[in-house]
Amino acid sequence: MSKNTVKLIPLGGLGEIGKNMMLMEYGENIIVIDAGLMFPENYMLGIDIVIPDISYLLEHKDKVKGIIITHGHEDHIGGLPYVLPQVNVPIYATKLTRGLIEVKLKEHKLLKATSLHTIQPGDALDLGPFHVEFFRVCHSIPDGVGLAVETPVGLVVHSGDFKFDHSPVDGRLTDFAKLAELGRRGVLVLLSDSTNTETSGYTHSEQEVGETFDRIFSKAKGRVIVATFASNISRVQQVIETAERHNRRVGVVGRSMVNNVKMATELGYLNVSPDMLLTIGEINRLPPRKVVMVCTGSQGEPTSALVRMASDEYKSISIRPGDTVIVSATPIPGNEELINHTLNNLFRLGADVYYDELLDVHVSGHASREEQKLMINLIKPRFFVPIHGDYRHLILHAQMAQQLGIPAKNILVIESGQVLEFDGDEGWLGEEVAGGYVFVDGLGVGDVGQVVLRDRQHLSRDGFLIAVVAVDEKTGELLAEPDIISRGFVYIRESEELIEQAKEQVVIALGKSTSPAVVSAKIKETLGEFLYEQTRRRPMILPVVIEV
Amino acid sequence: MSKNTVKLIPLGGLGEIGKNMMLMEYGENIIVIDAGLMFPENYMLGIDIVIPDISYLLEHKDKVKGIIITHGHEDHIGGLPYVLPQVNVPIYATKLTRGLIEVKLKEHKLLKATSLHTIQPGDALDLGPFHVEFFRVCHSIPDGVGLAVETPVGLVVHSGDFKFDHSPVDGRLTDFAKLAELGRRGVLVLLSDSTNTETSGYTHSEQEVGETFDRIFSKAKGRVIVATFASNISRVQQVIETAERHNRRVGVVGRSMVNNVKMATELGYLNVSPDMLLTIGEINRLPPRKVVMVCTGSQGEPTSALVRMASDEYKSISIRPGDTVIVSATPIPGNEELINHTLNNLFRLGADVYYDELLDVHVSGHASREEQKLMINLIKPRFFVPIHGDYRHLILHAQMAQQLGIPAKNILVIESGQVLEFDGDEGWLGEEVAGGYVFVDGLGVGDVGQVVLRDRQHLSRDGFLIAVVAVDEKTGELLAEPDIISRGFVYIRESEELIEQAKEQVVIALGKSTSPAVVSAKIKETLGEFLYEQTRRRPMILPVVIEV
Repeated sequence: MSKNTVKLIPLGGLGEIGKNMMLMEYGENIIVIDAGLMFPENYMLGIDIVIPDISYLLEHKDKVKGIIITHGHEDHIGGLPYVLPQVNVPIYATKLTRGLIEVKLKEHKLLKATSLHTIQPGDALDLGPFHVEFFRVCHSIPDGVGLAVETPVGLVVHSGDFKFDHSPVDGRLTDFAKLAELGRRGVLVLLSDSTNTETSGYTHSEQEVGETFDRIFSKAKGRVIVATFASNISRVQQVIETAERHNRRVGVVGRSMVNNVKMATELGYLNVSPDMLLTIGEINRLPPRKVVMVCTGSQGEPTSALVRMASDEYKSISIRPGDTVIVSATPIPGNEELINHTLNNLFRLGADVYYDELLDVHVSGHASREEQKLMINLIKPRFFVPIHGDYRHLILHAQMAQQLGIPAKNILVIESGQVLEFDGDEGWLGEEVAGGYVFVDGLGVGDVGQVVLRDRQHLSRDGFLIAVVAVDEKTGELLAEPDIISRGFVYIRESEELIEQAKEQVVIALGKSTSPAVVSAKIKETLGEFLYEQTRRRPMILPVVIEV
Repeated sequence: MSKNTVKLIPLGGLGEIGKNMMLMEYGENIIVIDAGLMFPENYMLGIDIVIPDISYLLEHKDKVKGIIITHGHEDHIGGLPYVLPQVNVPIYATKLTRGLIEVKLKEHKLLKATSLHTIQPGDALDLGPFHVEFFRVCHSIPDGVGLAVETPVGLVVHSGDFKFDHSPVDGRLTDFAKLAELGRRGVLVLLSDSTNTETSGYTHSEQEVGETFDRIFSKAKGRVIVATFASNISRVQQVIETAERHNRRVGVVGRSMVNNVKMATELGYLNVSPDMLLTIGEINRLPPRKVVMVCTGSQGEPTSALVRMASDEYKSISIRPGDTVIVSATPIPGNEELINHTLNNLFRLGADVYYDELLDVHVSGHASREEQKLMINLIKPRFFVPIHGDYRHLILHAQMAQQLGIPAKNILVIESGQVLEFDGDEGWLGEEVAGGYVFVDGLGVGDVGQVVLRDRQHLSRDGFLIAVVAVDEKTGELLAEPDIISRGFVYIRESEELIEQAKEQVVIALGKSTSPAVVSAKIKETLGEFLYEQTRRRPMILPVVIEV
């Protein structure tokens, strides 16, 4: 009988490999690490969110022992509402992460049916043959953990999303001692966060953002409005503390910001006295120099509080000249245009605006190159597997590991759906599994695929044109003037002549002796050529042939 | 009779104000500075390019004395093919700029009908009451100029796109002496480039890019491929010189790169001996260490040489492991996703890839803050008008001017279509004119407006659904089962049930006694509600009602 292996399988990455879901499998046992969502790219028209294709998981449903969540960001928890109805297994997460999961499951009416377990850094957990230890890591959300998994073939360490912040806002450091101890114990495989491998040096501490806030607050004569991610509890904490130092109180604006602040306060992750908080009424009543707002919208999301305020469409709060706005985030690639529009609008309303290009109002939650090196050298793994990054980040991280002395043959770069196998001595690529992703659009999960997307792309470029013709069911002869309906192609009211000519083309194409079977094809061909000739556009052409 | 004023009118800016076209008007005279195009934003679905709305210019056609082009970039010359057929006036440009304009006008079969005049830095030109002097400025394309226009109310200086590069590749510096002389003469208004006002300090010299190239070429064991803008002649020159130093020869790849290299060489702006250049055949035959390619695709443009090579779809050249690729550009906002895909693909093919995040393989063509200050202090204008930037850049530039001592009331920030008037003593906002932009899609100029765009956006999100019904022309009674055609909404083959239900809804909605007049409205309403209920999507619904 062949020796069993431990398999590592990243699923669903749209770009960032292993970030949204990573499986660890041994014999009849699978544990799932993270179950996140991805945000659609600009070309994925009409798609709300993107989730991992879990068909491999469904094929091996009985093996799944549980889902471990490393931290509470959407790209690590947002897939749960889609996974749980199909694979209902226990979820393990730290307190704050659990709080964020509960909010999400409640929205999807899945909370009662789910078995949730709170773990803490330092805890250990046995799931089948896997002995899982949790260690604390700093990130841009509190309560993140990495995993050390004792497997039958050796110790596997998963960094989670991490950085080595020496002065985090909550005072809780990445657990250096634990990492060193794991290194001493002997680690077979390290899976480590590659996100910032393009960034040299060290990621600045969250504390430096606080110092920048202080400088800005000191100068601000009116209200101060800080936009950041609703999940960035540490940043919200810094806003509150800076406000206190400057004798201001804080209004929380935007649905998800309100929900998260409430939850994080209840769970003890956000330290704010109730009399610090402002209602919307108080925000508008108090003298501007006494007011701070913390809100959503740092990515230019069209329905967020900041974006609606910037376009003067937020009902209860308007931006006024003299307001100071801090956009405390960096653009996620693809959001640049939306953010630029928001910034320009804020300037138009007369606000003083601070953003990443001007001042250090944001730091990343991910390790830069020197920290990534520190992780590798603390863990001293036999095999190194870069994860959590685009393919280019993984390669750059892999090259770094090689420079640090890990032999090239022990550095394994994989993409979603590729399977790494380890027997304790060797690591190799196993048989590939379905590693793609699935589109969620409205209530539909997976019903928009490449065909629908291609149609949407076609329609988005050139619109469509429908030619309605009634023909004799025997002779194919045209019985009346064709009718034409079009949207997204040309402005019909100003293109009457073109549309009339198109009708004539249909008449000419069909002539007198067409067989009904070929009417559609003839219309498509003739109209397609005619319209391209006239406009250099290729609208989708749909003949509707009614045989009478 | 009231004193005449000089008017300054920026037109067509999509974001960057005054960049694509700026009018200067005095009495019965208008000169046009630049006639560029804009690239569509991601939400402008299907649009090829965006050009300024020139209706103001057309209303005052007889006043127009000429078009002055400051340099040969698309955002300054790309609008000419659309302007010239309507306003055929002489064009004034330096030699290289003229070369680039000629290539463009030839493509549009407009060259013969156009009156082109070559000017040189140091030249002067009288256009009606305007005495225009040209001075050299450094930029990311050679042969750029700024303008000093002696007007009846005073001297107006237009910086063009500029930076103060102390070691430009062609050795031709921005004309400090001329700027100082203008300052001494006394300048009424300075219009100055605001693009990089978010960037502190000085823009690095082009020469530093050459030094980075040297380091990369020294390490490269295989071929070196450099992608940059086809118009960046200085960068191409640096690639050629670096190749010479490293005993390599250069293949030029990509249509626009080939055209520009040919033209710039003929006009003497690119210094390359013919035996340095490689044919495609030689690129593939020579030992890799002897080969350099310079190509298009630095913005991830889908049909460019680099992008097709990266996705292994370029017929004659494939990327091989060991190749070194340098992407010598920064992303234009909105292109990040395309560029990231290209970079990841290059890494997948095993190339060593260098780009802006990793090394200084690119410098901007625009002045940073200290250079912008130098411009203001050399010119010492009475009025300052920031141009060439998004609104936020103009405000930041305006704040800088104020810090340098220009009184707030003499700093005027305007958007496209706003009119600045000067009488020699005061500057004020005049009556606004049409300052918008026009979409070009295929052969259509302006026929895609907000209605068509909104339809495309709707179709791109949720597709459409057509319900074809034949009804009795008198009673409105349904004569046969409705037919449904849909694209971009759901994948029809897997949604048969939904489509069948939709047909039933149509039948139920119409009942037996509908008047033909309201059939369409009823179908729209019923189907819309039903489909939203079922899918949470809102496809465009188009009833086709055939009355028999």
